[in-house]
This record gives sequence, structure tokens and C-alpha cells, in this order.
Amino acid sequence: MKIICPQEDFAAAINIVSKAVATKTTVTIMECILITAYGDEIKLTANNNEIGIDTILNGKIEEEGMIAFDAKFFADIIRSLPNSDVELTTNEKYAGTILCQPSDTERIELGIPGRPGDDFPYLPEINQKGAIEISQMSLRDIIRQTAFASSESDSNIIMSGEHFKIEGNKLQVTAVDGHRFAVRKIILNDNYDNVEAIIPAKTLNELNKILKDDANEIVQMFFSDKYLMFMFDTTVVVTRLIEGEFVNIERMMMNDYQTKFVVPKKILSETLKRASLISREGDKKPIVMDITDNKIYIGIKGINANQNEEIAIEKEGKNLKIGFNPVFLLDVLNVIDEEEVTIYMESAKYPCYIKDEQDTYNYMVLPVNI
Amino acid sequence: MKIICPQEDFAAAINIVSKAVATKTTVTIMECILITAYGDEIKLTANNNEIGIDTILNGKIEEEGMIAFDAKFFADIIRSLPNSDVELTTNEKYAGTILCQPSDTERIELGIPGRPGDDFPYLPEINQKGAIEISQMSLRDIIRQTAFASSESDSNIIMSGEHFKIEGNKLQVTAVDGHRFAVRKIILNDNYDNVEAIIPAKTLNELNKILKDDANEIVQMFFSDKYLMFMFDTTVVVTRLIEGEFVNIERMMMNDYQTKFVVPKKILSETLKRASLISREGDKKPIVMDITDNKIYIGIKGINANQNEEIAIEKEGKNLKIGFNPVFLLDVLNVIDEEEVTIYMESAKYPCYIKDEQDTYNYMVLPVNI
Repeated sequence: MKIICPQEDFAAAINIVSKAVATKTTVTIMECILITAYGDEIKLTANNNEIGIDTILNGKIEEEGMIAFDAKFFADIIRSLPNSDVELTTNEKYAGTILCQPSDTERIELGIPGRPGDDFPYLPEINQKGAIEISQMSLRDIIRQTAFASSESDSNIIMSGEHFKIEGNKLQVTAVDGHRFAVRKIILNDNYDNVEAIIPAKTLNELNKILKDDANEIVQMFFSDKYLMFMFDTTVVVTRLIEGEFVNIERMMMNDYQTKFVVPKKILSETLKRASLISREGDKKPIVMDITDNKIYIGIKGINANQNEEIAIEKEGKNLKIGFNPVFLLDVLNVIDEEEVTIYMESAKYPCYIKDEQDTYNYMVLPVNI
Repeated sequence: MKIICPQEDFAAAINIVSKAVATKTTVTIMECILITAYGDEIKLTANNNEIGIDTILNGKIEEEGMIAFDAKFFADIIRSLPNSDVELTTNEKYAGTILCQPSDTERIELGIPGRPGDDFPYLPEINQKGAIEISQMSLRDIIRQTAFASSESDSNIIMSGEHFKIEGNKLQVTAVDGHRFAVRKIILNDNYDNVEAIIPAKTLNELNKILKDDANEIVQMFFSDKYLMFMFDTTVVVTRLIEGEFVNIERMMMNDYQTKFVVPKKILSETLKRASLISREGDKKPIVMDITDNKIYIGIKGINANQNEEIAIEKEGKNLKIGFNPVFLLDVLNVIDEEEVTIYMESAKYPCYIKDEQDTYNYMVLPVNI
């Protein structure tokens, strides 16, 4: 194999596929990046069997072939090169030679060990029919605004995933763990057949690192029985789906409320940040919210440290005293972009909801006993 | 005690003294920040017996007193407050109360545990006579450009320090370990009595984090038998000295050279960065520099990975083939601000020197056998 690519493009492509490189594995080929150069296409691939990514690398093929390199070492080497053309050649023993001549005063030749790559786990073939389109920015936002609420523990595999549901022109994404849920709804530009799937939150978080914050760039999603494929720019991301039935959150949705208040997001989230510091120091006590007509009193009575704050609010309905783990409320506020949030409660024993009028976001947090 | 201080100033002062807070210790009072408020001076102090720092905090004293708080928790709490006045009150049980009212819509009251602080290790008293003056920027540069060459191991306590020597209007700072030395010379604005001392490199690195990169701001240095005190802005830093005789580096200075060459610093340092990657992968092999008339060939012959680079140089004297640990050369290049460096060598068995004509910096690196 012999290819010539601009160093910047090479480093950027490696950065993309690196998100799918296995870190702790006994299958060492999964710690590699595969380079294939056939026809007029140079492709980089990584695959850890949870998530697989390939991306097209801009460059010239002088001799076709394929090779696999240890991802970490190869990434370090390519990043360490000057911004010029990089010529990569491999021989029949799978040794790679990198050549750069950025100027008359400098010549760089590096020899690095490769492997045949014929044991590399290829990405599954997905039928590219019925693409569902969404902008990179929207998909990025939706994942950022929900993934935190999925369970990090592996004990409930369903809750470690996010539920994607498409009905007509609506996409609804839901994450849930034992204490809370996060629901985001978005209107798509087209109508699609109904489809739903559970996607590992971990792989969505990796996907988010390579999506652009650009409303004009499109992502195409293709659902299959076992996989979901995302196509954008010259990159393909395939993630395994989680089998099973997702948690029915319909019955956890708000029916009614007795107390509703509007509060400045920044002020409440800074109060909750202090609450999490005080709570950590003071025997993990919950916060108590005492909601009155135009003020909310937030307090923690720890043995060592305590908190006693007041925030002016606009309130409708009954007064209420309710307890929370401050971190769960803080997680929600951290992903809301609006300056004010509206919070709905029914009683000290019922869930609390943070949602907007249009129902584009809906967060539920369970209270704790006080 | 009752004091009122702007939150920004409070957080900045905590940030300064935090550099002297002990991290791993059984003496828990050394993990604290002491606040004293007497007369018209609010002072924050931290001291881990290697380095002690106090700084004056801008604010108003409504009731005199003193208190100690756990540094980490107190810093987190003060940083978490909004940018407004912070009122700190303590009671006879050494409980602290923090009160903030940044606006009509918000009231913050936090209770945090304190300690009397009468067991706090005060900074040693240093005679403030014969101040030696240097700009914050120069001191910062000197430390940055030498401290890396001191020994990180505690096995040779002398080499874990830096030697400061003042003769007339000259300050010379030297660091040395078993493989290299770093010498920086600077001309001071005044003449001073001769004085020298060995200062722990670790405490100098902490000092460097709070010095400003400002040539117009002055640091005053006061030497005593056991301590060196730095005074700048409203801050005092006292560091313990290392007792003993410093390594005599005069006999390691360059007598003569057979080979001298000038090389672009950025190109050589990028080559050495790649060398350190290749060397790490390939059984820690040294780099071999083959210095010829107008080119330097740099290579590593590892079993797995190898390197083979050429850089155009301007050379005087003999050709030479010599081996190095690439990291030691890279450390030197990383702290040199000039675009070109001049390197002097005598033979493959003698030290290599990187120094400028004016002798403001002088770095020695021992070669390795090849």
C-alpha cells in the first residue's frame, strides 16, 4: 500500500475513528485503526463491537492495500508530524514507513510496526434505505440533553440505553434510570415510517464528540434490527442496539400538579451547586425546598455544614415542602439552555417535573423523604 | 470574627495561599487556611512546613478574630458564591457563617465548620533587611527555564533543590541532576552582598504558579540561614532552604569544543518529540545524532519502530556521531524562547552544551553510549 495525505486531514480522520477504538480488551486488533486503500477511496476504520466508525480520508492512492496500526501509537505519530503531505508505505511484512519532506531543510522518515488487519472486525452492513434526516446540531443537543439521565450501572442494561422513537415527523428521545427521566422531542423536516430502538448511551456520547455544532449539516440515520447507522460528512458510525422493551415512561408522566413555579435557572443551579458541596461535606443530607408564595427556601441541615438560601420565584398553587438529591436537579438545569425554568410538583411524595410549555423537553426527578 | 470581602478577591487570595496547603499529611491543621483579622488587616495563611504563604485580603473587619477552615472545602465554597460581597462571621464554637445577598431576589447563608487555628504553624519571622529585587517576570522565567533539570527523586536531597547565587549585580540559578545541568544568569538592577542558598525546586514551582508574567512588578527576596522569603504584591512566600553544599558545576563547564552547530529550535524539538514516541515504543533506544557538514542525521534503530530524519544545520568543526536520551534534549529546547539554538560538543563521550553567546543560559546534557 502507498498513500499520500495531508497531515491535518490524516490527524482529523484518526481523531474521528479513535472514538471507536477499544481500550481494555484482550482482542488486540480492536485496539487498532484499519486503513484500507482501494479504488479511489482511503478509509480509516475502528470498531470495538459496541460502536464502529469509518471515515474517508482525503488523499492519493499510489498502491492499493490495507494495514492495521495500534491506534494510540499511530495517532501520536501522525499528530507529531508537521503540517505537510504524509506518504505512508507498507511492505509485505506489514511494516509501515512514513515519509515527510515539509521543506528543503528537513526530511522525516519513520518506521512503525503494522499488522495485516485481515482479522479486523468489519462494520456490519446496514441497508441504506429510508434515511431519517436530522441536523448535526439538533442530534448533538438532544443527546447532550438526555444522555445524563441514563443509568451508568450495567445492572439494568435497558436503562443504560436511550430510547429513540420516530412517529411521523416526530423524534422522541428518552433516557431513564431509577430516579429520573429525560425526554426530548423534536419535529423533523419530513414524515417517516414509525420506528424505535434502544441505543447504548455510551456510544451516543462518543458520537456526540464528533458531531458538529452546525444546523446546516445533516445526519442520516438508518435503523436495522440490531444496529443504528449514522452517516454524516464522510463518516459512518454504527452502533449496536440494546434488545428488549424500553421502560414505559407514559405512566410516569405528569397527570396533574398542585404547585408550579418559575425560577431563574442560573440562580437555582448555583444554589444547587453549593448544596452538592454542603451535602458532600455533611453526611449526604438531601436538600429541603420550602416553596411559598413568592420565595423558595432551600436548606440543608447537616451536622457539620448547613445551607439556608432564598430565591424569589413566581408561583401558582399550593405551598409545598419537598426533599431532593441536589445533584439530580442540577444535572437537569445544566442541560437546559433557557434562562428560566418552570417546575411542577404535586406533593412531597410525587415526582417533580421540569418542562417547557411546548413539551420539547420534559424532565422528571423523584423526591427523597425528609 | 466578622469580615466583609468581595467574592472575587476572596477567591483570588485563596487561590494564592492554596499553593502551600499540605495534601497528604497526618497534621490536619496543615490542610487548613488560617484567616486572621486584626487591626485593619485581613490575612490568609497556609503552611505545609516546606513552603508557607500569606496574602492580604481586601475587605472590612467588623469584629477581630481568627479561624481556620479546611482549605479544599472552603475554596470550593467561596468559588461557588456569586460575585458580590461575602460576609463571614464566626462564633465561639468556631462555626463559620457565610452570608451573601447579591440582589433582592436572592439570599445565601451557609454554615461551615471551622477550627480555632491556635495550633496553626505560623510562618517563620524573617529579617526584612537587604531586599534583593527582581521583576516577577524574570523570576518566573528563570525558574521555568531551570527547575526541570533538578532531580525529582528524594535520594539526593541537594539535587532536588535549585542553587541561587548572588554576586554583586549578578544572579545565577542552577539546577542539576545526574545527567544534566541548567544554568541561568541575569543582571539585577542593583549591587548586593554575596549570598547563596539551595531552594527546593518543588516550592519554586509552586511559587511560579502565583507570580505574574509582568516585568514591571517587583519581587523582593530576603535570605536567612534557614529560609528564603519572597515578597510581592500583598503576598509573602517563605520557603525552607536545603542545608549542605551545592554540586560544584564549575568543573562540568565547557572547556573546549570540537563541533558547534546552529539548528532551528522548532524543527529539532519536533524531531525529538517523535524520537521520544519511537523510543518509548522501541525498547527505550537512544537517538543517534550523526553531525555532518551541513546536515544532522537523527535516528533510532528500534526492533519495532525506527526513525531516520535529516535537518539542515550550520556547522563548524569536526563531524561527530553521538547518542542521547531524546527527552533530556527536549526538556532543554522546551524552555528556550529563541528560534535558533547553538549546540557544542567535544566527543561522543563528553557532555553536550546548549548555550547562547551571552551566557544567559547554559544547559549541559550527558550523552549515552551507542
